[in-house]
Amino acid sequence: MKQSTLYTKTRKTLPKDEVANNATLLLKSGFIHKEMAGVYSYLPLGLRVLKKIERIIREEINSIGGQEIFMTALQDPKIWKKTDRWSDEMVDIWLKTRDEEFGLGWTHEEPLTSQMRHHIQSYKDLPVYAYQFQTKFRNEPRAKSGLLRTKEFVMKDLYSFNADEDGLNKFYEIAQKAYMRIFDKVGLGKSTYLTFASGGAFSKYSHEFQTLCEAGEDTIFVDKKKKIAVNKEVLNATVLKDLGLNRKDLIETKAIEIGNIFKLGTRFSKSLNLTFKDSKGKEQLVVMGCYGIGPGRLMGTVVEVLSDKDGMIWPESIAPFKVHLLEFKKGRGANLYRELIKKGVDVLYDDRDASPGEKLKDADLIGIPLRLIVSEKTGNKVEFKRRESKTAKLLTQNEAIRKSL
Amino acid sequence: MKQSTLYTKTRKTLPKDEVANNATLLLKSGFIHKEMAGVYSYLPLGLRVLKKIERIIREEINSIGGQEIFMTALQDPKIWKKTDRWSDEMVDIWLKTRDEEFGLGWTHEEPLTSQMRHHIQSYKDLPVYAYQFQTKFRNEPRAKSGLLRTKEFVMKDLYSFNADEDGLNKFYEIAQKAYMRIFDKVGLGKSTYLTFASGGAFSKYSHEFQTLCEAGEDTIFVDKKKKIAVNKEVLNATVLKDLGLNRKDLIETKAIEIGNIFKLGTRFSKSLNLTFKDSKGKEQLVVMGCYGIGPGRLMGTVVEVLSDKDGMIWPESIAPFKVHLLEFKKGRGANLYRELIKKGVDVLYDDRDASPGEKLKDADLIGIPLRLIVSEKTGNKVEFKRRESKTAKLLTQNEAIRKSL
Repeated sequence: MKQSTLYTKTRKTLPKDEVANNATLLLKSGFIHKEMAGVYSYLPLGLRVLKKIERIIREEINSIGGQEIFMTALQDPKIWKKTDRWSDEMVDIWLKTRDEEFGLGWTHEEPLTSQMRHHIQSYKDLPVYAYQFQTKFRNEPRAKSGLLRTKEFVMKDLYSFNADEDGLNKFYEIAQKAYMRIFDKVGLGKSTYLTFASGGAFSKYSHEFQTLCEAGEDTIFVDKKKKIAVNKEVLNATVLKDLGLNRKDLIETKAIEIGNIFKLGTRFSKSLNLTFKDSKGKEQLVVMGCYGIGPGRLMGTVVEVLSDKDGMIWPESIAPFKVHLLEFKKGRGANLYRELIKKGVDVLYDDRDASPGEKLKDADLIGIPLRLIVSEKTGNKVEFKRRESKTAKLLTQNEAIRKSL
Repeated sequence: MKQSTLYTKTRKTLPKDEVANNATLLLKSGFIHKEMAGVYSYLPLGLRVLKKIERIIREEINSIGGQEIFMTALQDPKIWKKTDRWSDEMVDIWLKTRDEEFGLGWTHEEPLTSQMRHHIQSYKDLPVYAYQFQTKFRNEPRAKSGLLRTKEFVMKDLYSFNADEDGLNKFYEIAQKAYMRIFDKVGLGKSTYLTFASGGAFSKYSHEFQTLCEAGEDTIFVDKKKKIAVNKEVLNATVLKDLGLNRKDLIETKAIEIGNIFKLGTRFSKSLNLTFKDSKGKEQLVVMGCYGIGPGRLMGTVVEVLSDKDGMIWPESIAPFKVHLLEFKKGRGANLYRELIKKGVDVLYDDRDASPGEKLKDADLIGIPLRLIVSEKTGNKVEFKRRESKTAKLLTQNEAIRKSL
C-alpha cells in the first residue's frame, strides 16, 4: 500500500485523559481512535493487526475442533434470570438498555447453552466445541489502561460441551496447549505464564495466561523454573502445597491477563436444563467449559511488552505490514515497490512528500519489522534494517527483495 | 467437512412467532438461531454464507479505494447532539443504555466525521473513502421479516469524503457500479433495480437497490426496459418527468431494499466542523456521501428469491459449501471425500447414520449447489446433480471430481 493513500496520519496531540503506554502509542501512530473513555475504534493499520491476531486464533481453535458461530450482543433477560446473572447485584458490569429491555452481552454462556438444547439430545451429539469472535460490552469503572480494559471489545469465546468430566478435562488440556501456541505465535510466548486463579463451585482453580508486564493490573507470583504462576488472589499455604510450590521460589510481579480458561461443569446446563441421553438411555447434564481471549487486549499487550522509546515493534506474524519501504527522494522507491508487490510482499511504501527525518520517526513509531530505505546516498543499493536493530546493511535490490520474502 | 461433526441439526419445530420464509428456511436448516424477535445468531453454515458475502463486498469496496476500519457500537451522546440526531423525537429507532449514558450506533456518520478532523486538514488529504463491517442496532418495531429487518445486524457502511460536489458525484457513480457488481456476484443482479428514492437537503434523490420479491416491504414502480425504478414514496408527475419515465411503462411491485446510497453533502461536516484548506488556503467544508449494504439482509433476500418448496438454492459464490457429498452406505464416500479435499474442493460430506431419504431431504433444505451421491446403486460411479435440477447424471469418480472443481 502507498502511504500517501493511507488516510490516517501520525498525531502529536493526544486525548488529555490518556495515560496507558499502549493507548498513547496506538493513538499517536493512528492505529486506533478514542471515542470515549474505554471505547476505541480501529483504524486501517490497527484493524490489520487485529485481523491477523484473529486469524492466528481462528486457525488454532479450528485445529482443536472449534466450530465458528456469531451470536448477538442483545441479550434476553429471561434466560439470564434462570441462571441468576441478570441483576446488577449479581453482575455489576452489565450495560442494559432503557427499562432493562435488553442486556448487552458481556459473555455468552446463557444464550449458547440455551441454543444447544436444539442440537444436543444424545451422547452421540457430543462433544461440541463452538466459538465466536464477537463484541462484548462491560461497564468497566476503571477504563484507564488503553486496549487492556475497555467497555466494548471483540472477544474470542469458546465453549465446550462434553458428556462427562473426563471429556472436559481432556479438552481443557488440549485448549490450554492451543492457547500457548497462540501466544507463541503473536510474540508473547516467552513472557506468558499459566497462572492458577480462583475457580468456582465446580473446580478448585481456573487458569489465566498472564504476561509479565509492569503495566498489568494483576499481581502474580511466578516460579520461573517450573514455568507456572499463582494469582495473588488465591495465594496461600494450601495452594502452594497443592501445586508443589515453594514460597521462596516465587517472584511477585505485575502481569496482564491475556487469556482465561474455566471449567464450568454443570453450572449452566443445570440452570438451563441442557441434558442428553447417555448410552444407557439415562438423562444426564452436559458438562461445560469456557475459554476466552481478547484479540484487542492481546494487541495492547504486545505494544506494552515489545515497544521501545521510539515506538512499537511488531512481530512479523501480526505486523500491519511486513516491510516498510521508505524513499527519501520522490519516486525513487517506485520500482522496488512494484517488484515487492509482484513477489506478493506485504509492503507499506512511504511515498509521501515528507522529510527523511519525519519518515524515519513515523516508521519507528508504526513499528513495521523490516525496513528498506532508498535515497541518494544508497545509490542503486537498498538500506536494510530490522525495526529493533541499531545497525543497517547495504544490499542490492535483489538481496533486499530476498530478505523481504 | 464431515457432516457428522457439524454440531447443528436440521429442525422440524420452529419458534411460534416466525412467519418470514427466509427465517423459516434458515432456522429449519440450522443456519441461524432466533434469540428474540428480530435478533438472530449465525450458526456454522449461516456464518459461512455471511463471511462469503462479506468477502465479495470487501473485494469490491477495496477495488474502488475503500480503507477498512472498525468503529464502535457505543456512541457518545455529545456528538449526536451537535447534529441534532440524539433525541428520540428526531430518531425513533435508537437503542440507548440506561440513563441515556450511551447510544448503540444505528449508523456512523457522526463518529467518523468527528474522527476525520484528525486526518483531514488540507485538500491534499482528500479524497478519503472509509468503510467497516460492524454491528448496528435499531429498535425496529416491526421485526417480522426474518433477516430482512432485525434489531441487530452487521452492516457494511462506506463513507466518502471529497473536496467538492464534483468529486462526490464521480465517486457516487463509481460506488453505484461497484454495488451492481456485488449484487451480480451474490446472484441477485438480474432481479435488482437501481431505484430513485427520497433525497435530503443536499440532493433531490437517494438511490436504493431494490430486489423484486413478494416478501419485500417496499413498493416500487419498475421500468424493465430502462432498468430503473422509482420508490412509491416519491412517485409523482414531476419525478416521472425528471427521470424521463412514462407512467404506463411502470409496473408496481413489491421489493426488498438490499442497498442504499446517499449524497450527504455538507450536512455532517457543517454540524461537526470538518473543514480543509483548499489549494488557495481557503477553509472549505468537506463534501460527504454514504453507502450501505447489510450482508445479513442480502443473505435473507437470496433465500427469498432463490429457494423452492424443498429448501434453499445457494449460488456457488456464497454457498456454505460448493459440493454436498452424500453416501447412502456407511463409509462408501470416504475415498471420494479424501480426493475432493486433496483437490481443495469445498465439500460437506454427509457421513451420518441416517436414511437416504433423510439425507436427501436435508440436502435439499440446506441447498448446496452441487450434489454427489454414492450408493449401492451407483456402483463405482457417482451420481451428479445440481440442486435446482430435476435430472441427475452418472459419472466416473474422476469426472465427478472434475465437475466439482
